Amino acid sequence: MVANLADNLARLLGDSKVLRGPAAERAYDCDTYTVDRSKPAAVVLPDCTEDVAKVVRWCNENSVPFTARGAGTGISGGVLPALGGVVISTKRMTRILEIDLENRLMKAQAGIPNKRLSDAVRPNGLHFAPDPSSQSVSTLGGNIAENSGGPHTLKYGVTTQHVLGMTMVTPEGEIVELGGRVSGSPGYDLVGLIVGGEGTLGVVTEAWVKLTPVPVGIRTATMAFATVRDATESVASIIATGTIPAALEIMDRYVLTALHAAFGLQFPEGTAALLLVECDCGPVEDPEGTVEREMQAVIGVCQQNNATEIRVAADEAERTKLWHIRKKGIGAMGRLAPSIVTHDGVIPRSKLPEMLDFVYAVATKHGVGVANIFHAGDGNLHPCFYFDDRDPEQVRKVIEAGEEITRRCVELGGSVTGEHGIGVEKVDMMPLMFSEDDLAMQALAKRIFNENGLCNPCKVLPNQKSCVEHQKRWRGTAW
Amino acid sequence: MVANLADNLARLLGDSKVLRGPAAERAYDCDTYTVDRSKPAAVVLPDCTEDVAKVVRWCNENSVPFTARGAGTGISGGVLPALGGVVISTKRMTRILEIDLENRLMKAQAGIPNKRLSDAVRPNGLHFAPDPSSQSVSTLGGNIAENSGGPHTLKYGVTTQHVLGMTMVTPEGEIVELGGRVSGSPGYDLVGLIVGGEGTLGVVTEAWVKLTPVPVGIRTATMAFATVRDATESVASIIATGTIPAALEIMDRYVLTALHAAFGLQFPEGTAALLLVECDCGPVEDPEGTVEREMQAVIGVCQQNNATEIRVAADEAERTKLWHIRKKGIGAMGRLAPSIVTHDGVIPRSKLPEMLDFVYAVATKHGVGVANIFHAGDGNLHPCFYFDDRDPEQVRKVIEAGEEITRRCVELGGSVTGEHGIGVEKVDMMPLMFSEDDLAMQALAKRIFNENGLCNPCKVLPNQKSCVEHQKRWRGTAW
Repeated sequence: MVANLADNLARLLGDSKVLRGPAAERAYDCDTYTVDRSKPAAVVLPDCTEDVAKVVRWCNENSVPFTARGAGTGISGGVLPALGGVVISTKRMTRILEIDLENRLMKAQAGIPNKRLSDAVRPNGLHFAPDPSSQSVSTLGGNIAENSGGPHTLKYGVTTQHVLGMTMVTPEGEIVELGGRVSGSPGYDLVGLIVGGEGTLGVVTEAWVKLTPVPVGIRTATMAFATVRDATESVASIIATGTIPAALEIMDRYVLTALHAAFGLQFPEGTAALLLVECDCGPVEDPEGTVEREMQAVIGVCQQNNATEIRVAADEAERTKLWHIRKKGIGAMGRLAPSIVTHDGVIPRSKLPEMLDFVYAVATKHGVGVANIFHAGDGNLHPCFYFDDRDPEQVRKVIEAGEEITRRCVELGGSVTGEHGIGVEKVDMMPLMFSEDDLAMQALAKRIFNENGLCNPCKVLPNQKSCVEHQKRWRGTAW
Repeated sequence: MVANLADNLARLLGDSKVLRGPAAERAYDCDTYTVDRSKPAAVVLPDCTEDVAKVVRWCNENSVPFTARGAGTGISGGVLPALGGVVISTKRMTRILEIDLENRLMKAQAGIPNKRLSDAVRPNGLHFAPDPSSQSVSTLGGNIAENSGGPHTLKYGVTTQHVLGMTMVTPEGEIVELGGRVSGSPGYDLVGLIVGGEGTLGVVTEAWVKLTPVPVGIRTATMAFATVRDATESVASIIATGTIPAALEIMDRYVLTALHAAFGLQFPEGTAALLLVECDCGPVEDPEGTVEREMQAVIGVCQQNNATEIRVAADEAERTKLWHIRKKGIGAMGRLAPSIVTHDGVIPRSKLPEMLDFVYAVATKHGVGVANIFHAGDGNLHPCFYFDDRDPEQVRKVIEAGEEITRRCVELGGSVTGEHGIGVEKVDMMPLMFSEDDLAMQALAKRIFNENGLCNPCKVLPNQKSCVEHQKRWRGTAW
């Protein structure tokens, strides 16, 4: 690595835009996937596209790897500086650049937290629809990298459906515009390729996003069940009626216990799973009538599936509280153990009952704790293993259990990741789903944009020998 | 080109799968963009993925260009065999391979007509949502290549939002699986890249698509206006209320005249534009109440914008007839002149009033006829020039007028194509929207998948010298 790397960067950008030293190294050595860590040589804090391009060009000239980072709320190690080098933090790139209410569009810098996009236009009855649980901090750029979803993905779609265009610094340091402010941008859909590209195809610095009308009629309810199977079967039955609720979430007894302790969440004794359902409708329709009818249909299905209690949120305050609790679910589990690894897989919705049985069985077999809080409507699982990451034996078991679950998702016709990406965590899982020819196509796609492998190395597909070494190193530590 | 090309292919596939001779050449020398033509050396009719792979490998071994073709309903020359070679017709690949009602998925071969996908599951209350006007013949593979939309795109999205995975023969003849039967396939979104890739990145042979519940409550109405501006301003105002109708279409007086002559469509004298609006809702809600309220809101807006007549379809028969008429709109204009070229551009919705004024002014300036029938809700224009393509002077004027309109779309913050692709028609327009660096990114994307340029050459981006020669040749003839 270049000597005086941080000094060089400080000369390039100004001293106030470069962090170095042990504190910076520790703060930027992982995301929430804490079982893998790697220190950066320096962290830069650009405030505009040109700054980013300068850094990327400098890295290319000096063969230094670089990794862009938003809020670091990812859970597959996507912002881990796997081979050291420079972390490009977007935390000073938080400006809204243009709001076009008439055409329902907004342009903002990549480092803006997701929720601030919505806050800016809520007085106009609009919002940015993707709503990851981390939305108060997780950034637009991070959401683009991971193609983030959230509870309302079921009805409103994931990030890729809400991004129209972007300014990106290519892995070689050129500034390009992809897409634009209207849909149907001509030529190849490079926007779609970059969204979900996990930051390996360039550094997105600004983006045009769609704004969606805030629903006017909303009903939110929780349904308690004595078995997880009753809850998962309700989900399949609700969707089978043709209704698409805005959200259909499940929390199991382990999550509920933590949420009871943290926020006083109430539920009947003996509850094995709580279903959280939201129905909504657009601003012109009659909220009282339409949404009430939809919710009654959902309630009817839950009653047939042996719901033990059904509570409809009485007002907006109660509704907001329910969502606050849901979104803090994983945080609340911090009480259960020092470390939590949230897994992410997706299966056809109809396989949920059998898959959940499998998740509990695997956890029992390995003797690790598991809690489930997930987007049931999408068939998107999030088994959370809680453990002590200071004990290598526990770490090994958690990794093994996670891999078994991931394999099962694939066997059931699903995928190794629902919305949290491959990162470093699941690089080894790709061959479960893809043939050599399929992976060769993926590798080609990576290589066009990232020929020398400096841009966020070792993610999605391992692209150089040093990645294998990095992996051996951390797995060696953990196992 | 290889001698005895057709004989070679017949040995490879069997004689019944190869067409040759003047009739085949004429039938496959263009799509509906008739101002550019080029004869294939042979046409093959594979019935499975393996057949396609055999042909593509043979073409690679013999440096013969190849172009996949569905129904040939495209309008930018996307299936034109620009450098001759082999046309791979998917017309015998029309099988449905799997229907998964529980998870609302279907797998089918690429040559199946769009409408047959929906027909197969309509008894189950489901359909394939993208509905191009050509849907009774245009194929799944063609819809994937062009990322087709239709009137209901406004609410339900374009093809890319409904395709989950695919089997593709790469430009080198390997068979790969991209994506799968659930969303969130890991790695780079190659499915998204292939959809809209205009057949230049490989030959899609099978695909997994999402099925969408058929709306239960539907109201369809037409609103007549004495000026086009009143109609376009109504569109912006309807969207501004927060309502998203299922469809929001405009037909101008020239289209209406043709539709009156062909189908007896009625409208008040002095009508300059007819707005066709559909509101719908899901199966659980109360169709009578909900949809009626939404339609009333739309009607209120139209009244404020000086609608001269409002007619709500009385029953399903009347509704079906209205859509039949709308979808035959361009066909009906065949009465106006021997040739029609349908242009395609998109602008921010708010710019519709000024853009339509511009379209008429350009047509007047060049002395060519223009009729407009378009997806107003999406800001997606379709100016249709009617002319006699046997007169080179008229062809030149039509091309010039089209280019002026396309330029104006870009100036207004829109795009050179809404849903019909670049094809050969708009290759020259790409620099209007993209810098050299931007286009270099596009070229890279094309080159990885299509290194030797044999797969559907000369489309999207001109990738070899012979494309320029092809273009000079046909422009030379036309001008």
